[in-house]
Amino acid sequence: MSSILQKHIGQYVKLDQAGYTALLKYFQVFKVKKKQDLLTVGKISPNLFVAKGCVRMFFVNEKGAEQTVQFAIENWWISDYMSYSSQKRSEYTIQAVEASEVLAIDLASQEKLLKEFPVMERYFRLMHQRALAASQHRIKVIYGSSREQLYRDFAKRYPEFVQRVPQYLLASFLGFTPEYLSEIRKKRS
Amino acid sequence: MSSILQKHIGQYVKLDQAGYTALLKYFQVFKVKKKQDLLTVGKISPNLFVAKGCVRMFFVNEKGAEQTVQFAIENWWISDYMSYSSQKRSEYTIQAVEASEVLAIDLASQEKLLKEFPVMERYFRLMHQRALAASQHRIKVIYGSSREQLYRDFAKRYPEFVQRVPQYLLASFLGFTPEYLSEIRKKRS
Repeated sequence: MSSILQKHIGQYVKLDQAGYTALLKYFQVFKVKKKQDLLTVGKISPNLFVAKGCVRMFFVNEKGAEQTVQFAIENWWISDYMSYSSQKRSEYTIQAVEASEVLAIDLASQEKLLKEFPVMERYFRLMHQRALAASQHRIKVIYGSSREQLYRDFAKRYPEFVQRVPQYLLASFLGFTPEYLSEIRKKRS
Repeated sequence: MSSILQKHIGQYVKLDQAGYTALLKYFQVFKVKKKQDLLTVGKISPNLFVAKGCVRMFFVNEKGAEQTVQFAIENWWISDYMSYSSQKRSEYTIQAVEASEVLAIDLASQEKLLKEFPVMERYFRLMHQRALAASQHRIKVIYGSSREQLYRDFAKRYPEFVQRVPQYLLASFLGFTPEYLSEIRKKRS
């Protein structure tokens, strides 16, 4: 599994095999079952790399419903960056959508890693830049689109998600009822 | 003006005076009037640092209205990161809300800067991490809150904005009509 992170890092920065082996010691590896939590409310968020599977981040809204705000599949990082950066208790849960393999690093370990491998500043800078672009697009789509377009845009950008993620979670992510999402999907076919 | 960026960088990484002077040559400095554009639709977005003033990023929605997606005041970076990272034409406009002083850097120049000053990878990584945290919070608030709470949360987190930014722009940013925002503000006082 850990070679997936190595391959991913290699797409952005140079790090030899010895370096990569040394770098891995800063991470914890988790193999989680479907619906198992990787972060729970009140804990401090680690920074998580999905090597295999799919996880989601959600909070419980005022109506008591789980509102998914983010998904991550292979090669994506996910974290509550407010909690991670400021070491504050998180208001989110990060949970496996499928059986998943995840590499986790806490802030203190990441700081040590970055001291030992300054080249990784670039890797994380580029990962954050990619996440920021996705996040900006998400806000644009929320504000600029009808609910049907919201789904079409998402399905076009992330076809894999639409196949993999249970329909009720996708509906929650898009702010729909599952019934409404089902209607839109039928319309298309 | 440029010393504002120097001070800001100094909060995160070490860079001596000579280094800073050398670094500045990668930037273009713009002094813009209120409502002057720093990025227009169809152009490639630079990465912008607001040294003085306030700017906003918006797109024109299907109804022909300007939808503000982001503001930036002193010490904040703003960019369409999809356009910037992929060198694609932007769908956004970045415009001065007040008379502003802005430092701009394009992707090629930033790459050169980062080669000369690798320590700046850390600075930009931390800036992106901060922006990601803000963006995640924004999405949470959009999904989890009533419209009135949306305003209260924003006013609490960014009191300075609420004072400085014209009410109709703040309304657009929050997805309100100006009348509705005015109602909420009256209720409070």
